[in-house]
Amino acid sequence: MVKSFLMLGQSNMAGRGFINEVPPIYNERIKMLRNGRWQIMTEPINYDRPVAGISLAGSFADEWSRQNQENIIGLIPCAEGGSSLDEWSVDSVLFRHAISQAKFAMQDSELSGILWHQGESDSYNGNYKIYYKKLLLIIEAIRRELNVPDIPVIIGGLGDFLGKEGFGKGCTEYHLINQELEKFAFEQDNCYFVTAEALTSNPDGIHMDAISQRKFGLRYFEAFSKKQHVLKPLVNEDELLDLNYSRTHTKSEKIYMQSMDFALGKMSYDEFIYQVTRINNN
Amino acid sequence: MVKSFLMLGQSNMAGRGFINEVPPIYNERIKMLRNGRWQIMTEPINYDRPVAGISLAGSFADEWSRQNQENIIGLIPCAEGGSSLDEWSVDSVLFRHAISQAKFAMQDSELSGILWHQGESDSYNGNYKIYYKKLLLIIEAIRRELNVPDIPVIIGGLGDFLGKEGFGKGCTEYHLINQELEKFAFEQDNCYFVTAEALTSNPDGIHMDAISQRKFGLRYFEAFSKKQHVLKPLVNEDELLDLNYSRTHTKSEKIYMQSMDFALGKMSYDEFIYQVTRINNN
Repeated sequence: MVKSFLMLGQSNMAGRGFINEVPPIYNERIKMLRNGRWQIMTEPINYDRPVAGISLAGSFADEWSRQNQENIIGLIPCAEGGSSLDEWSVDSVLFRHAISQAKFAMQDSELSGILWHQGESDSYNGNYKIYYKKLLLIIEAIRRELNVPDIPVIIGGLGDFLGKEGFGKGCTEYHLINQELEKFAFEQDNCYFVTAEALTSNPDGIHMDAISQRKFGLRYFEAFSKKQHVLKPLVNEDELLDLNYSRTHTKSEKIYMQSMDFALGKMSYDEFIYQVTRINNN
Repeated sequence: MVKSFLMLGQSNMAGRGFINEVPPIYNERIKMLRNGRWQIMTEPINYDRPVAGISLAGSFADEWSRQNQENIIGLIPCAEGGSSLDEWSVDSVLFRHAISQAKFAMQDSELSGILWHQGESDSYNGNYKIYYKKLLLIIEAIRRELNVPDIPVIIGGLGDFLGKEGFGKGCTEYHLINQELEKFAFEQDNCYFVTAEALTSNPDGIHMDAISQRKFGLRYFEAFSKKQHVLKPLVNEDELLDLNYSRTHTKSEKIYMQSMDFALGKMSYDEFIYQVTRINNN
């Protein structure tokens, strides 16, 4: 049975890390939901915008996979760039869409966790004052509607690069939102906070860069697997990423990569058949 | 009110034309559904696979937009690569997912047409013998469930490049499926057939190339707008495409393009602000 995870929040959950800045992840035990069905995961996972890229969910799933060798993980992408907390309120379009996608996933998977990252769009105007209360209504409603009352919710903090430049300049109250996110995770059952400390952004000053998303995903997994808050960067983030990047690919994964190159016109049919035969005979 | 169109079928509806082989379409009056909401359309529209590319829906919408200057068109991407007709049977996952997406769209749009392209996965083994009957059940059920009994269904034929090479080699009975698709459109109310005559494929021998998808989209629109079958290529396909490509972009479209380049790291924040100011002052 696939263990599935729901991706909720705004652009830094969807992922805007530049694809070419980190090694790709090809792992046949990581799936993503497309048209209500599971497909092999290839980034971008959460295609809410043409600029979607590397998300924390990729390295989260890769590390999950390394520590759960007999199982398959499935990602349910529902994050929406720029969305405010109000746009996730109970029975809003984003809320109902996420519930609907989760229900498709739950037909043949066990919903095992919720990955939440939101708050940039609420980092101004005193919105932090009512953030906790609003988030509680949303999390309670999701757990109720999907009948998963005790499901872990992993809640990431906002990056310290906010409030300074580019599109991030307006997020002047991000640290106050962070306090609310942390307080929420500390007080609510089965909720875990993950720090964004030391993570960096794209030149736009608001979107986490690709390498930071990879590290953030490891922290999310640490919080999920240990059932505890992650309040400091992990000491071995680089080593864990290298370990996963250097995994030997299976035959299916190698053929999948060749198939993509062929489908994208990067090789002839004869070359493709040659490569597949070579992989199968190895 | 947005006029929306449901994209159903397999990979040639999703679109696998290479993005870099045709000019892009940026048109603020063309939207696509993402997370249950409308976003400005940027190709690929139907992101069922990492290799998704140019679909017929792009030029269909662009030509629709030229002939409906006061209105907005919305595309609902639900096509699934490799799917057989059985995988679209009533109450299958793909069927229910498409109904669910259409219902999100219909909250603030008028569902105005169904774009269907499927059959490669049934072009063998005598599947053509029962294709008509199965398709009828599906179309009847969609019209019933969405309460659009008279909605036009535009049904494209399969390409003559099939049955010859690459991944298309196995589609030996594509002409028999074409006969069924045509017969279906001729006999069923508000159904229109669109020929794939003279369209060409990617090197894989199964997926329509980008320029063919652009032409196919014009034919789909001709069938939709004239409410008649399109049994021959249009005489002015190249001119129509040139006409649409050469449209002067609005300020919003120009800013949207700059925003994408900025979000993808192709320019600095200062350069981005300079470009936006320049566009606004023109």
